[in-house]
Amino acid sequence: MRMTMMTVLVAAGLAGCGTLRAQGPEIPGYTAGQRTVASAPISLAELEELQKSLLFTEDDVRALRMSREVLEPNVEELVGVWYGFVGANPHLLAHFRDQTTGEPDGEYLARVRARFEQWVLDTADAEYDQDWLNYQFEIGRRHHAPGKNTTDGADSTAQVEFRHLVALTIPVTTTIRPFLERGDHTEAEVDAMHAAWVKSVLMQTILWSYPYIHEGDF
Amino acid sequence: MRMTMMTVLVAAGLAGCGTLRAQGPEIPGYTAGQRTVASAPISLAELEELQKSLLFTEDDVRALRMSREVLEPNVEELVGVWYGFVGANPHLLAHFRDQTTGEPDGEYLARVRARFEQWVLDTADAEYDQDWLNYQFEIGRRHHAPGKNTTDGADSTAQVEFRHLVALTIPVTTTIRPFLERGDHTEAEVDAMHAAWVKSVLMQTILWSYPYIHEGDF
Repeated sequence: MRMTMMTVLVAAGLAGCGTLRAQGPEIPGYTAGQRTVASAPISLAELEELQKSLLFTEDDVRALRMSREVLEPNVEELVGVWYGFVGANPHLLAHFRDQTTGEPDGEYLARVRARFEQWVLDTADAEYDQDWLNYQFEIGRRHHAPGKNTTDGADSTAQVEFRHLVALTIPVTTTIRPFLERGDHTEAEVDAMHAAWVKSVLMQTILWSYPYIHEGDF
Repeated sequence: MRMTMMTVLVAAGLAGCGTLRAQGPEIPGYTAGQRTVASAPISLAELEELQKSLLFTEDDVRALRMSREVLEPNVEELVGVWYGFVGANPHLLAHFRDQTTGEPDGEYLARVRARFEQWVLDTADAEYDQDWLNYQFEIGRRHHAPGKNTTDGADSTAQVEFRHLVALTIPVTTTIRPFLERGDHTEAEVDAMHAAWVKSVLMQTILWSYPYIHEGDF
């Protein structure tokens, strides 16, 4: 399915334009780079400052790019591991349950999953430009009320709690390491890719936290 | 000075009682375990849930304990590295500048530093009991307005921005690794101690964020 989508995008001349994939109908609700995404409330200069606080450098950008090659063929399996983690933790799975039936909402899970797979590639490719920055805050709104349910027409919990949103930095980056080891990279390169993933995911969960924060405190 | 303080505490029968050090006059503003510290707004059961989201287990508790032995003799040097990082970043050093003179406030820096050194040991020793949990929120208030300045009678910035507070998880845990390597531990043990430190510091910066978060969103 992924290959089919890429084929369609390449045929349409839409692949490889900029850092964020042009939207295809195969990724529901994926709007990165589109004009409908609101402008970020912090500047690119403030993003650079945040990167300094995170010790995030050009070396990390290179390590993330390196990770794409080894992650892309495994992205469905990788996101499957993350879904397994969520499914094994009732306090996390709750955020995919339909409020009326009490059951996990299969369509909601599937729509989020398609975006989650694309997010892996976007994290590896990120150029930290204005489109990328804007979309981080859109992702934040989609974890917070009311954006969480409206994006996918779901009827689940109003929002993911702030504390769990940021905490998920750890399972995401811990379980990614065996996937980073699947290529022909040296141990030092795997270490560098892993460290870059930790920094990038924490950077993103910090940005996603914006709607949870009192005005002026971010 | 640290040894002197320990000697005094041992002589007074105050050392080793519980997970948090009884306060000595040598650590200004250190109030862990005292009745003046307000009760945490989340329960111990909610803390356990957060630990699950962080993949934080008994193995991490053991790895943190293991780290104490190698960190304690180096704690002044370690915190010196962190202070060097803050001093090299104007957007972080700003939070130690006196608003009137514009200069770094030496007394404020010294008071915070003494607590920061104790924090290293408390992180290694933590038993995640009610006193520990309560004190995390006290530390949060001391990064947020008005607690930041009042604790030390300082006249500096009103608060540390949320985004930088959580981001500091990375420099703290990246620069600690060479210190963890100073003992006789295997590489696997050093990896385990380092991973546990990353989880614990992220857990703490999440808890410290509480006063920044909209009511009901934490």
